[in-house]
Amino acid sequence: MSPYHAPLEDMQLLVNQAIRKTGLDQCQALEEFDEGLVGAVLEEAGKFAAGELAPLNPVGDTEGCHFDNGRVTTPAGWKEAYRQFCEAGWMGLALPVEYGGQGLPKFIAQPVNEMWLSANLAFVMFHALAQGGSEILLNFGTDAQKQRYLEPIITGRWTVAMALTEPGAGSDLGALTTRAVPQGDGYYRIRGQKIYITYGDHDMAENIVHLVLARTPDAPAGSRGISLFAVPKYRIQDDGSPGESNDVLCTGIEHKTGLHGSPTCSISYGEQGDCFGELIGQENRGLAAMFVLMNEARLSCGMQGVGLGERGYQQALDYARERIQGAGYDGGGRVAIVRHPDVARMLLSIRAEVMGQRALGYLIAAQIDKAEHTSDDAERTRLEQRVALLTPVFKAFATENANRMAGTTIQIFGGMGFVEETGVAQFMRDARITTIYEGTTGIQARDLVFRKIRGDGGQALTALLDEIDGDTEQSFLQETGFGAALRQATGQFRALIPVICGDSGDSLSLNAGGVPLLEALGTLCCAWQLCLIAVTAQSRKDQNPVYYGNLMALADYYFAYSVPRIDAGLSTFQQAGRGVSAYQFDQ
Amino acid sequence: MSPYHAPLEDMQLLVNQAIRKTGLDQCQALEEFDEGLVGAVLEEAGKFAAGELAPLNPVGDTEGCHFDNGRVTTPAGWKEAYRQFCEAGWMGLALPVEYGGQGLPKFIAQPVNEMWLSANLAFVMFHALAQGGSEILLNFGTDAQKQRYLEPIITGRWTVAMALTEPGAGSDLGALTTRAVPQGDGYYRIRGQKIYITYGDHDMAENIVHLVLARTPDAPAGSRGISLFAVPKYRIQDDGSPGESNDVLCTGIEHKTGLHGSPTCSISYGEQGDCFGELIGQENRGLAAMFVLMNEARLSCGMQGVGLGERGYQQALDYARERIQGAGYDGGGRVAIVRHPDVARMLLSIRAEVMGQRALGYLIAAQIDKAEHTSDDAERTRLEQRVALLTPVFKAFATENANRMAGTTIQIFGGMGFVEETGVAQFMRDARITTIYEGTTGIQARDLVFRKIRGDGGQALTALLDEIDGDTEQSFLQETGFGAALRQATGQFRALIPVICGDSGDSLSLNAGGVPLLEALGTLCCAWQLCLIAVTAQSRKDQNPVYYGNLMALADYYFAYSVPRIDAGLSTFQQAGRGVSAYQFDQ
Repeated sequence: MSPYHAPLEDMQLLVNQAIRKTGLDQCQALEEFDEGLVGAVLEEAGKFAAGELAPLNPVGDTEGCHFDNGRVTTPAGWKEAYRQFCEAGWMGLALPVEYGGQGLPKFIAQPVNEMWLSANLAFVMFHALAQGGSEILLNFGTDAQKQRYLEPIITGRWTVAMALTEPGAGSDLGALTTRAVPQGDGYYRIRGQKIYITYGDHDMAENIVHLVLARTPDAPAGSRGISLFAVPKYRIQDDGSPGESNDVLCTGIEHKTGLHGSPTCSISYGEQGDCFGELIGQENRGLAAMFVLMNEARLSCGMQGVGLGERGYQQALDYARERIQGAGYDGGGRVAIVRHPDVARMLLSIRAEVMGQRALGYLIAAQIDKAEHTSDDAERTRLEQRVALLTPVFKAFATENANRMAGTTIQIFGGMGFVEETGVAQFMRDARITTIYEGTTGIQARDLVFRKIRGDGGQALTALLDEIDGDTEQSFLQETGFGAALRQATGQFRALIPVICGDSGDSLSLNAGGVPLLEALGTLCCAWQLCLIAVTAQSRKDQNPVYYGNLMALADYYFAYSVPRIDAGLSTFQQAGRGVSAYQFDQ
Repeated sequence: MSPYHAPLEDMQLLVNQAIRKTGLDQCQALEEFDEGLVGAVLEEAGKFAAGELAPLNPVGDTEGCHFDNGRVTTPAGWKEAYRQFCEAGWMGLALPVEYGGQGLPKFIAQPVNEMWLSANLAFVMFHALAQGGSEILLNFGTDAQKQRYLEPIITGRWTVAMALTEPGAGSDLGALTTRAVPQGDGYYRIRGQKIYITYGDHDMAENIVHLVLARTPDAPAGSRGISLFAVPKYRIQDDGSPGESNDVLCTGIEHKTGLHGSPTCSISYGEQGDCFGELIGQENRGLAAMFVLMNEARLSCGMQGVGLGERGYQQALDYARERIQGAGYDGGGRVAIVRHPDVARMLLSIRAEVMGQRALGYLIAAQIDKAEHTSDDAERTRLEQRVALLTPVFKAFATENANRMAGTTIQIFGGMGFVEETGVAQFMRDARITTIYEGTTGIQARDLVFRKIRGDGGQALTALLDEIDGDTEQSFLQETGFGAALRQATGQFRALIPVICGDSGDSLSLNAGGVPLLEALGTLCCAWQLCLIAVTAQSRKDQNPVYYGNLMALADYYFAYSVPRIDAGLSTFQQAGRGVSAYQFDQ
């Protein structure tokens, strides 16, 4: 397996693109975070990712986690890497300085996160939990809670676990049954079983703060009766240090097809009747609080797709350049397989998706920063709506592609890809969960269609299409025909808005057609981002003809190979009830 | 994991469809193989597949094969299942009675094979090798060779291994270096290293006949200098029984991401200089002989896609009917997830592909039978061309879909699908090699474009399109609009034939666009077959309204969800050089 190289040139290009696009470069509060600082941070992160995390990735896959008598042991090297990760300050990179973080904006944290995800996804899964858990506490915690939890989490002394799923309550959180009974002292007695808890137990930190969704005794049924509790593994003493056990018991870990290095735990809370938690935010408003973490996790999933795709691309490209097999298509002797047009096609299919989705992921991060720092309320609302619209698209599209890209990477390796020691089969196995956890692709599509489009009468989608249309006016896009192709696609989406938002909206079709619609919108967003990249590339072509020429070729590739699928997807969306409505599965 | 059920009703329907389509029902030589006999064979095979083979599938996956000191041991139960498989006569089902086979036509063997592949793909991989190896000997062997090898192979006392690949010669067989030096007594001294040899060593049979591709000392370079040799693991004594070792050494087995129960061996031939083989067919004509087996193996791969898809579908359907999660899309209480339109969409995506591809696989088998039994030379040529055209399409399309279907199966299971004990992750891991072995998807596409279309000036493709057009005249297809949609697609393919066959054919585009073209043709063929199914279903609807109504809904589904991709694929084919020609991977 060839080593991981952080794609610094691509990253810097797309950070700059996101900054310019959102106008963050005009934001005074962030002026210290200039290109020099970004470059320095990315370079340091790249060294850590390549040097410390990537080499542990196959170790974690091969060794996996160990479970014995209620305790989880992580793979060899995990503990030491965790210590270094925290000491270097990576855990709190985009969290407040006041609690021990580095206070960097998200537009810098996003490419850094991508490196961790490329280098060792299974290892670094604690990080989005720390980020999202901290944001929950910052938004919903009392001052005392912030004092109690934030500094240990942000410095990595404690980790965060997110305890949502129960055997009977997965996608449908409203069905959960874990109970929380108030004790009168601000604490609640917690009792219930949760499953699929990432890093629910491990040996890397001195305490674990479980954020547990549960019901109070008089809570309404369904999702409006769910509250959020902080339930530490070890009770917190008056001096803030972890004390005695809080009756939080790991009862097992899953034997998964991928992500072997990340322990996926079943946890029993209060089996001895001795587990206590404190309410975060208000009673029965737990889902709203948890969605802060959930949205963070969904954006992280999208970046996982980018990170896995990039890692596979690097492997496949190295192999394709070295592996000699068969004569060239235009005659002559044996050539490296990268010279075979079908192999080039496969490589480009990964490279183009990675670049388009990476651009989208960085753009979303910059939009979150801009929404935080703008003093213009209307702009803030507009940006928040945009991020809300793009989150399910990015999450689902990038992860569906992660699966396809992992398959393509193996395909480029041929028979060697099927052999575990080559290392690329792991990408396929690891990627497989990304379209499932943090809300399946189907759930993202429903969120897109019903909440994000129908919910605001198509306003946020129209604003996105307007922005894309505006960008097509750039002369390079006019000349190449890319602009006209984009405008044709945006026109097709506009025509569908009344269908989606209409009173007579056929709910069966909207549900069945959601995924094809989401994939079409993801493709449009990638095409748009690749166009913006091509515009920059064209203007800089003289500086580095091969690199920028290739970026222009990527857009060209995408319009030939992926954009035609928009039409197919939207055609399907418009007739999505066909077959699905008539088929009877009960026979 | 729910048990496997052979889908007898679907199978019988599609066997009948294939018989009618090819006119085999008019073939006197096959009149004994009537519906009653087919039904009896399928029922027996279904019992064996479900009762004996399917239960061993997870055993093989979990335990894998063992390698120790040059010997391979198969998983627990393998040896006994092999004995039963042979004793029941399944090995020689479609091989000559004169050598111990059952002499059944391929149109019956195909659904039987599908059952083995559904039930336990890793186990049964010896079977296509026995079938194809026997066909090589029947076509190219001397009488003495037929006497020596066929009966032991067909009864399963000996197995066949296919030794093609070398570390430097995978897709490009012309590069192989294994040597065969004539000894003057009709035997050749063999020396070389081969890899990726399925069942290259094992403990289930008393001998293994390796069919080895090698070069004689004065052979021309490249693929025109390759000869085929039968190299038994144990030398064959005068009485026909295996005797002393023939210096065929298994040096290791691969640690693969899937197909753990099937040993994939590295073999060293003649390490002690003491390995001998006999020439099969003529010197330097080894590839032509091996292609008899290869074509058999490619058709088997296509059926593997069908079999894996069917098995996943059965699992996913059972789970989706049982798993209660979330409220129904049209209001009301919690429902089984099969009631969610997006889950129904996913199930239908598998069911429709499986039925379309199964129909295609059975049709090809019937065409091979018809070509064998027709007395009309023109018809035989026409059928052979048709089979040659459809082989790469069926192989590549069905296996690419096998990967997609396996992913969809896991997706329907949600988080449980990612847990190995559920059993469906195995389908993803097993399926991953099917687009690689026996010629990658890229190689199938090249075969389709250059040999099968360009090679005959588009004649075979035109004949296929003519037949599809002819079928669209059926009144049900006219009424539903299916016929018009098919005709539109065939028209698009017709328009491309001059592009593919033209003198100025841009080889880069034809190579880069081959896979999109192949996928489009696969989709057209499935749509066509689903139309024929719908016609039958419509005429029988009163007999079983749910079953036949569902088959009609399948076609409807496919025209809404898959057929629009034909247009996208052909649009890509026409601009396939874009990006690919400009991108420079050498930077």
